Amino acid sequence: MTQDKPLQNISVQNVREAADRIASYIHRTPVLTSHTLDERFGAHLFFKCENFQKTGSFKFRGACNAIFSMSEADAAKGVVTHSSGNFGQALARAASIRGIHARIVMPSTASATKRDAAIAYGGEIVPCEPTNEARKRTADRVIRETGALLIHSSNDLPIIFGQGTAAMELAEEAGQLDLVLAPVGGGGLLSGTALAVRGLSTGTAVAGVEPSGADDAYRSLKQGEILPSLNPKTIADGLLTSLGSNTFPIIQQHVREIVTVDDGAIIESMRLLWKRLKVVIEPSSAVPLAALLEKKLDVKGQRVGIILSGGNVDLDNLPW
Amino acid sequence: MTQDKPLQNISVQNVREAADRIASYIHRTPVLTSHTLDERFGAHLFFKCENFQKTGSFKFRGACNAIFSMSEADAAKGVVTHSSGNFGQALARAASIRGIHARIVMPSTASATKRDAAIAYGGEIVPCEPTNEARKRTADRVIRETGALLIHSSNDLPIIFGQGTAAMELAEEAGQLDLVLAPVGGGGLLSGTALAVRGLSTGTAVAGVEPSGADDAYRSLKQGEILPSLNPKTIADGLLTSLGSNTFPIIQQHVREIVTVDDGAIIESMRLLWKRLKVVIEPSSAVPLAALLEKKLDVKGQRVGIILSGGNVDLDNLPW
Repeated sequence: MTQDKPLQNISVQNVREAADRIASYIHRTPVLTSHTLDERFGAHLFFKCENFQKTGSFKFRGACNAIFSMSEADAAKGVVTHSSGNFGQALARAASIRGIHARIVMPSTASATKRDAAIAYGGEIVPCEPTNEARKRTADRVIRETGALLIHSSNDLPIIFGQGTAAMELAEEAGQLDLVLAPVGGGGLLSGTALAVRGLSTGTAVAGVEPSGADDAYRSLKQGEILPSLNPKTIADGLLTSLGSNTFPIIQQHVREIVTVDDGAIIESMRLLWKRLKVVIEPSSAVPLAALLEKKLDVKGQRVGIILSGGNVDLDNLPW
Repeated sequence: MTQDKPLQNISVQNVREAADRIASYIHRTPVLTSHTLDERFGAHLFFKCENFQKTGSFKFRGACNAIFSMSEADAAKGVVTHSSGNFGQALARAASIRGIHARIVMPSTASATKRDAAIAYGGEIVPCEPTNEARKRTADRVIRETGALLIHSSNDLPIIFGQGTAAMELAEEAGQLDLVLAPVGGGGLLSGTALAVRGLSTGTAVAGVEPSGADDAYRSLKQGEILPSLNPKTIADGLLTSLGSNTFPIIQQHVREIVTVDDGAIIESMRLLWKRLKVVIEPSSAVPLAALLEKKLDVKGQRVGIILSGGNVDLDNLPW
């Protein structure tokens, strides 16, 4: 997707505009609290429940913002993406609301569940060989043949701004926070969250939490350059992608730190949230609270916002 | 518990007073909607999520109203109940907030999970033999020895008024509804819901949904007198108790109908709500939607409020 703004000109104002643009399409999701969890962690925790978002994840926010930012002429040609997970479903649904054609490039090895979900939300599956090169080549061919706009699941600016609206709502509802936590995959949620939260209150810190088996963002921030995710392995399968040319500098500028957590703590955190908060969340959503379980962050006495990113999980294969 | 009002004088005003009394102790739980479920059932469904209520069920509302209605003198003597499920936990927690002693009479065969939960919320377990007679005898002994007030899990008026506050919030949030559905066990939730809903809008109907394996309320309404629950058998283990002297006449007066559903539909409904609404709910909560699955109610084109009563379920023993 083309970028029409240099990075130094972006701010919380872009997130505000996204919020206005998508307000009538998204769910304003609730913020839940738990006395029991607060006592356990010695902090005030505010959980922003994007698992209740349409299509089951925060991805619908960015997808709507991208789709409804397009000119009529661009919209007529449709969109294409090569995310087969939550973003593919979100883009398909957002596109169908505007009456735009959405093509989802998906490896022929993708599960029937993922294919069916994208189709049910109104997307067209474009199958390809199961390699990154084939995905890219197939998307390029679609673009050549149709003029469709390629939308990246995390690195496009309209996506980043859209994802930031969850944290904006959280801040409005929870009041002054000391810290906001988000999981990190491609960094779309974390960079949007940081733009929103830091732009609204410089007294609020933002930290990212990443599975140790997919710690490219942690390493990238240490190294000062983007280090891609190599053979990532974690139960949090929404967090396998790498930072991009937009998400990385925004995170560098606005995020205090990224900490990593092990899969064991992610599973324990997921179960704790199901049991105590009564929410169906996917493993990626459980990653931030895992950092409190592992004592990777000191939150004693603090007011902490936590974004629960999504709830698309196989109910027949729970990890406990 | 003593009744200080004849039944003909009760109204939605009692529910309003309860709402004011308990406002600072309870969660105002969110109302969730799902485009996918609306399309499936051809109706607009509004789910009031009492699974997110403190102690994991709507029972906390009635418990708080009962506890905070007590005089200082009565409060000093504490309370006693013989519910070992959600109500026992709710009463223990509500009592501990006021600093009152709560005794929960529980059969020695009750699960460690139930005992531990009541203790964790601040209650004192009073064990008894696992018969109804022993429960009653034990509670009577506690009352004699301590002067504690017996609080029934569904039939006491302050309990009924407290339970009605969930539907009152639902009506405030969802706007004009055609129908409100609640599960029926002892009838505390259904009678409180009916008082609130019918008092706020005579254009809104209220229906109860009951497992066919515990259909005493359905039979009682047909018969015109309370028929007790005999050897009830259903997966919805929160709905085993029978109607009482207060809940029955309120339901007779204000509830349009009670329909019954099979356990198979309850399990299917529970799974559908987990999958689509991303909520952890217990089987009893899934009973109302099961009536739509079984086409026991015609809701085509209607705006329907559904109370999801609780979320206390064993995550290691899901019924699918």
